[in-house]
Amino acid sequence: MTAYTLLTGGTVVNSTTTVDADVLIKDGTIVAVGSFDGIAIDGLDRIDHSGSLLVPGGVDVHTHIDSPMMGTVTADDFESATRAAACGGTTAVVDFAMQLPGKTLLESLEAHHAKAQGKAVIDYGFHMCVTDLYDNAVDEFPEIVQSGVSSFKVFMAYRGTLMLHDGALFDVLRESSKAGGQVCVHAENGDVIDRLAADLIADGRTGPASHEISRPPSTEVEAVRRAIRIARMADAPLYFVHLSTEGSVEAVAEARANDWAIAGETCTHYLTLDRALYDQPGFEAAKVVLTPPLRTQTHRDALWRGLRAGSLGVVSSDHCPFCLAEKRRLGEHDFRLIPNGGPGVEHRMMVMYSEGVVQNRISMQKFVDLTSTAPARQFGLTSKGAIAAGFDADITVLDPRGRTTISAATQQQRMDYTPYEGWTIPGAVTAVYSRGELIAKDGQYIGESGRGRFVTRAGQ
Amino acid sequence: MTAYTLLTGGTVVNSTTTVDADVLIKDGTIVAVGSFDGIAIDGLDRIDHSGSLLVPGGVDVHTHIDSPMMGTVTADDFESATRAAACGGTTAVVDFAMQLPGKTLLESLEAHHAKAQGKAVIDYGFHMCVTDLYDNAVDEFPEIVQSGVSSFKVFMAYRGTLMLHDGALFDVLRESSKAGGQVCVHAENGDVIDRLAADLIADGRTGPASHEISRPPSTEVEAVRRAIRIARMADAPLYFVHLSTEGSVEAVAEARANDWAIAGETCTHYLTLDRALYDQPGFEAAKVVLTPPLRTQTHRDALWRGLRAGSLGVVSSDHCPFCLAEKRRLGEHDFRLIPNGGPGVEHRMMVMYSEGVVQNRISMQKFVDLTSTAPARQFGLTSKGAIAAGFDADITVLDPRGRTTISAATQQQRMDYTPYEGWTIPGAVTAVYSRGELIAKDGQYIGESGRGRFVTRAGQ
Amino acid sequence: MTAYTLLTGGTVVNSTTTVDADVLIKDGTIVAVGSFDGIAIDGLDRIDHSGSLLVPGGVDVHTHIDSPMMGTVTADDFESATRAAACGGTTAVVDFAMQLPGKTLLESLEAHHAKAQGKAVIDYGFHMCVTDLYDNAVDEFPEIVQSGVSSFKVFMAYRGTLMLHDGALFDVLRESSKAGGQVCVHAENGDVIDRLAADLIADGRTGPASHEISRPPSTEVEAVRRAIRIARMADAPLYFVHLSTEGSVEAVAEARANDWAIAGETCTHYLTLDRALYDQPGFEAAKVVLTPPLRTQTHRDALWRGLRAGSLGVVSSDHCPFCLAEKRRLGEHDFRLIPNGGPGVEHRMMVMYSEGVVQNRISMQKFVDLTSTAPARQFGLTSKGAIAAGFDADITVLDPRGRTTISAATQQQRMDYTPYEGWTIPGAVTAVYSRGELIAKDGQYIGESGRGRFVTRAGQ
Amino acid sequence: MTAYTLLTGGTVVNSTTTVDADVLIKDGTIVAVGSFDGIAIDGLDRIDHSGSLLVPGGVDVHTHIDSPMMGTVTADDFESATRAAACGGTTAVVDFAMQLPGKTLLESLEAHHAKAQGKAVIDYGFHMCVTDLYDNAVDEFPEIVQSGVSSFKVFMAYRGTLMLHDGALFDVLRESSKAGGQVCVHAENGDVIDRLAADLIADGRTGPASHEISRPPSTEVEAVRRAIRIARMADAPLYFVHLSTEGSVEAVAEARANDWAIAGETCTHYLTLDRALYDQPGFEAAKVVLTPPLRTQTHRDALWRGLRAGSLGVVSSDHCPFCLAEKRRLGEHDFRLIPNGGPGVEHRMMVMYSEGVVQNRISMQKFVDLTSTAPARQFGLTSKGAIAAGFDADITVLDPRGRTTISAATQQQRMDYTPYEGWTIPGAVTAVYSRGELIAKDGQYIGESGRGRFVTRAGQ
Repeated sequence: MTAYTLLTGGTVVNSTTTVDADVLIKDGTIVAVGSFDGIAIDGLDRIDHSGSLLVPGGVDVHTHIDSPMMGTVTADDFESATRAAACGGTTAVVDFAMQLPGKTLLESLEAHHAKAQGKAVIDYGFHMCVTDLYDNAVDEFPEIVQSGVSSFKVFMAYRGTLMLHDGALFDVLRESSKAGGQVCVHAENGDVIDRLAADLIADGRTGPASHEISRPPSTEVEAVRRAIRIARMADAPLYFVHLSTEGSVEAVAEARANDWAIAGETCTHYLTLDRALYDQPGFEAAKVVLTPPLRTQTHRDALWRGLRAGSLGVVSSDHCPFCLAEKRRLGEHDFRLIPNGGPGVEHRMMVMYSEGVVQNRISMQKFVDLTSTAPARQFGLTSKGAIAAGFDADITVLDPRGRTTISAATQQQRMDYTPYEGWTIPGAVTAVYSRGELIAKDGQYIGESGRGRFVTRAGQ
Repeated sequence: MTAYTLLTGGTVVNSTTTVDADVLIKDGTIVAVGSFDGIAIDGLDRIDHSGSLLVPGGVDVHTHIDSPMMGTVTADDFESATRAAACGGTTAVVDFAMQLPGKTLLESLEAHHAKAQGKAVIDYGFHMCVTDLYDNAVDEFPEIVQSGVSSFKVFMAYRGTLMLHDGALFDVLRESSKAGGQVCVHAENGDVIDRLAADLIADGRTGPASHEISRPPSTEVEAVRRAIRIARMADAPLYFVHLSTEGSVEAVAEARANDWAIAGETCTHYLTLDRALYDQPGFEAAKVVLTPPLRTQTHRDALWRGLRAGSLGVVSSDHCPFCLAEKRRLGEHDFRLIPNGGPGVEHRMMVMYSEGVVQNRISMQKFVDLTSTAPARQFGLTSKGAIAAGFDADITVLDPRGRTTISAATQQQRMDYTPYEGWTIPGAVTAVYSRGELIAKDGQYIGESGRGRFVTRAGQ
Repeated sequence: MTAYTLLTGGTVVNSTTTVDADVLIKDGTIVAVGSFDGIAIDGLDRIDHSGSLLVPGGVDVHTHIDSPMMGTVTADDFESATRAAACGGTTAVVDFAMQLPGKTLLESLEAHHAKAQGKAVIDYGFHMCVTDLYDNAVDEFPEIVQSGVSSFKVFMAYRGTLMLHDGALFDVLRESSKAGGQVCVHAENGDVIDRLAADLIADGRTGPASHEISRPPSTEVEAVRRAIRIARMADAPLYFVHLSTEGSVEAVAEARANDWAIAGETCTHYLTLDRALYDQPGFEAAKVVLTPPLRTQTHRDALWRGLRAGSLGVVSSDHCPFCLAEKRRLGEHDFRLIPNGGPGVEHRMMVMYSEGVVQNRISMQKFVDLTSTAPARQFGLTSKGAIAAGFDADITVLDPRGRTTISAATQQQRMDYTPYEGWTIPGAVTAVYSRGELIAKDGQYIGESGRGRFVTRAGQ
Repeated sequence: MTAYTLLTGGTVVNSTTTVDADVLIKDGTIVAVGSFDGIAIDGLDRIDHSGSLLVPGGVDVHTHIDSPMMGTVTADDFESATRAAACGGTTAVVDFAMQLPGKTLLESLEAHHAKAQGKAVIDYGFHMCVTDLYDNAVDEFPEIVQSGVSSFKVFMAYRGTLMLHDGALFDVLRESSKAGGQVCVHAENGDVIDRLAADLIADGRTGPASHEISRPPSTEVEAVRRAIRIARMADAPLYFVHLSTEGSVEAVAEARANDWAIAGETCTHYLTLDRALYDQPGFEAAKVVLTPPLRTQTHRDALWRGLRAGSLGVVSSDHCPFCLAEKRRLGEHDFRLIPNGGPGVEHRMMVMYSEGVVQNRISMQKFVDLTSTAPARQFGLTSKGAIAAGFDADITVLDPRGRTTISAATQQQRMDYTPYEGWTIPGAVTAVYSRGELIAKDGQYIGESGRGRFVTRAGQ
């Protein structure tokens, strides 16, 4: 009977402290953090992690798993996506439950539960997407929030499929706030984008590179500023997903300086990849047909600055994988039909460690905050995001002496490419614990199948 | 032989987590935090704090103890001031070492060390004040920083005694930065203030109420914005002491949004006391002849907003006590001669708890951050500011069921008044540990004399 | 044979000079301004205006004459509206030609020409309203601009009837700019307003006072900032009609400081009437059911400040008259159905003179600029807006010694009320010249019928 | 007996109108502007200017003539400077009367009057420089203003010689405002500059190129923002001389958008010359040792934008001539001793015409405004700055078909260089009228000696 597990020899990094300490675990929960030398504990299982960093398991609050989008479905189901996440050091995701055509919100949510249950190998929660605000839809908000789905998602782009107009956005903000929820907003001025895109098609510029041109920075910044004003009118909190531009960082910074309940996320790829990838020949640029598109160095500098300054608080993956073959099938002749998105849940932690910590752009504590503590706190995952007594024993062991090579050939994501192909990164995730169980080792999943649990998240 | 002490039953509040946990202490240091039920520890001394909050001992980085100012000396010496601090839940101070007339910086620092040693009962550090930038003064900066005094203080007001002109400010910023230090700035446009004050005297308005009129908000905001620009030119970090106005909060927020190394502090009294106190009859207003003066509700709202938004990061006391009798002796006929300052080190923690946490303006975690974690981190007190393994066992036990009454009659500060006279506050500091020793209980000091140690602080 | 007319004895006020001078007129045109004492001119007709101010005839660039709106038609036709304008000192209007259901833009414009021709008594131009951007509508823009209609108008409110979405707004901006035109924008977030209005109705608050509540300042400011960004993306000039809020003034000021081609107008009533009028009992508030609604003193102060600072450049009337009886007929039970608008073309000049010049808010030269010079220049009325050689002899004689009383009983507008009822104003328009003809005297029209001419306006 | 002169055939350009018109002059004053065809005028002298532009004579409000500065005296006296001005199309200057060591303000002003009287050939006014605010100096302000010297000048740089500290600046602002005057401010943070300069000298970088490095843009912008705040505290109008940076344009734009009485000037050279001139070998860079220094294209773009947007209202020459030989004599071994300044009064008009109008950066009307109308209005030259009845007949005839070549060899300024050496410019000043007298023709002075008059300027 092993009552206790003790992870020894590591350096425990939380968002505000870094200490050489052991972590004592029992029944999936952290019971104490400190030094236990000279203290006898019965039935103790010791695991040595000397020389490694122990960080709270990654929390990725922006994924699209097994999700219908733009005439197809994302390439990963809950099994493959969460295995990939686990191997990369992420122990919880909050995924988007899309509203299904002809279904109510609650029916759609139920359907998404069914996709995850028994397949996910790490803990998960959902955001409820609202893409058609039918009569009385808002009446379902309280039940949704009470079921532990305390956030909604809306789109200011994609007229005709996903987009809500400003009046509906206002309604969702106000009603979700009343119900104790918050709203995640995809902020782009879709109508202007549609015109720019139509012009490009009319000019015969149908290839994937046009994707970027049709979505200039101003289309994002305008929508961000508009949404902030509407959130203020609705007296509701708002969270921006996937911000990519300097202007958005400034807008969010101003709002936050006023102590308004405005939060902003950016994604791994906006911090690390350059728009020059759209200049690649052939259909190659389709790999980075993401929305919003990649930007220039100026914007990346602003995003990093925003993270350091606290204007942006979360780094997610926006894992929305479509194989290149599928992108080609749908959008070869019209870039507007290429499904928007790419993979990311597996490599978010190590890419951020490398480009952030190793490159001296952020401290190790800030890394923990951005990838785990802050997203957990933002979205009410109260038992995740810290290595402290009482928290779930979701712990990622990062060995700075290791080395990680990223390649489509070896990745766990069910994808035929990765935008980080060939990257070799100092450091490696050598062990991942989920609720005290060692589920991944050196990039391979070794836990049980379908062990993940739905996490009810606290509201505001 | 008691090797271990265990504080049990409390709720441990750090700046980012709140957990029900016990705290295990050995040799003055925290060795573990968590649950130790069912684990046998030899020689354990258990102390029950059930129902109480355990917070990191307060860190007050702005005090003037035994300090020559405006023709007199502050009323508290290191013994009385640190006893008062301890009784109020503060376990470390960083005090200002004034530059003495005709003495070098190093000589002045040595003299201040002598005042503290053997008298202070809690740990302490120093900022080095620079009020006369004599030739080659900056050559002493590296030695000062290496001795653990990693911050300097300059004044933009008080021409003829304390004020440095902008060129000297630039020099101090640049040279301290090179030496690994930072600069604390008293930001007010002293020259404009002197003119306004001279006008009031010329108009026969010699009473203490004129103090406020001579220092309008703009005199602070102008200096804040100027100092930020000069710090940028010098490529040096800067910390503003005692900010009191909405405009200053905005200026600091803008700077921080740019990821500039600009930090801001406010003080207990600017958050809680109204300028109406200057309208009191007779010489009563002299009690709040502080610099800068108290402001209106609009400014207080902005300060609280700034704390919540993170624009301001530290709340200090600016403990600078002068008895009312002394204020009258010097300044009865000319408000410009009233020594500027008031007491505060004793009541900072409980006033902030009451006005901040109980009044729902800030969370308990934010309270911990503002009063302990952030000041410790800002000023390189690396072993203070958190309840975590490896940190000094400086712990304040706050019982929310208690009650605290503030009165000059019962306070420990060596003062004949307190601006909080008669306040009754929910909650009480029932026990205070300094490096594991219980030094104060229910508002009375019970530790040894002169046990405080000088803390060498890390530089940038 | 009278070749020349000389207006003598007056003070000629242009937007940048004020001189005591005579004005020499021939064939409807000003030929010289100055002193002609001692110079013999054959066939000279002298008219004495000693003691009066001679200002360029008013140019009102925002009127809705004989216009279908909200299920009815505005109360004035071109005869009554332009007679009223003339009596009030206005000698040119630029009116909105609405797009008619099922008609092309050119057909609609043709129909509006038919309404004006032979009825207008002063010169007039048109803006082309675009409320349904049907396929290839933009192809008509060049012909419209070349016909002298060099400005378009779009609405960001009134979904379902007038509103264009952002993509269409972008198109109109870009295409009109290419054609040499500019775009006038009604900036309000109509979708949010519709939600707020629906809520009020659902709460049983159906009366006219709800009009104001449903259109808070933020709904205007958001749309203003959005439109500026869209205009920048379209690289097109933009003119905001009827700005009413402080936030809009700030937004336009920022844009103009960047030297962007952004201009702003406000209206007489936003400068002079308070929102307290919505608190009147019964249906009385319907008189000021204007869009946007009247605001508070704070906003009015900002508007005046904006005029003085040059952020706002034009004061128009937004003459959009609906009799109270008609307002009641349509909207008695639902404020959303009350036709939005009120009268104003007749009294704009004297209300601005009184509230602006007499109240010392603006100089007399600024008055001339706002009411005549600037609107003429903004909209390409190249022969209007100044008293200088070569300009049309459109001159308004304003006697500061006179007195004007405003009343529905005596007004020329075909209306059963005026919001300025009972106002008595120092100063009076004693004579109005249009192309050299004396057409109004002491508030009565004395010119020929239907003498007004369509003015082709220059483009950008 | 020739009573009247008629300038015929030209195009009269004022700041807001452009008309083909003749100008009728009598007794030095314009009596009428327009067409006089077919009107017989007795004793008329007709001068044909067909094909030329008639603009209001230039008004240059920033010159240092016969002025003691930095251990020497400027190279031009009132005769040479005003002849040069006249030849270049400028018909009025406002010159700085320096405060002389040991003299009162009134005595200093008297001394400056003596230098100008009988020597100046165009009309002139004075600003009163205040460089030492001795006791009761402000008591002389009313007499100074009443004598027609309605503006003061102060320096925020040059500690020890010219600089006033902020308290004195406050006093001058407040007292001049009370007296009906305004204050011109040289805005640079002199103390920071002195430190930067001392460092350069210490590093052995003693040459003229160091001048620029010691005065980075921030030193100007900081002082501009500080002065604005101090002016607001003093409730006084303020005029910034010689602004050179983007940040200053922004600061002034913000202030003006608030309708504060803040005005800004830039100079010909900041608009047209690049900082690359400091990279010239040898002592050549000393020619552009001006204060503030020349800047980069980014700043020039901002200055032009500021002029178009109205943030900056005046373009002056800052004519402050020191021969290169003199610069070398004083500052060859220490750039800090090079007298700061260069020539400009002669070429301001044509350089602005060429770089502004011909290069399409500003309209011809804007050119008139910046070089004549606005400076005349800003500084109370009520009879200058427009071609209109009642104004002084100060008229510059600019023939766009001409050509102007600038060279030290041919210039009228008493200087051994010009920074515009070798420039060939389209257009030429062919005739200049001062109070109706033709005083310059094709770049040669042909008027009487010493004919200029002191102009009393109106206050606020």
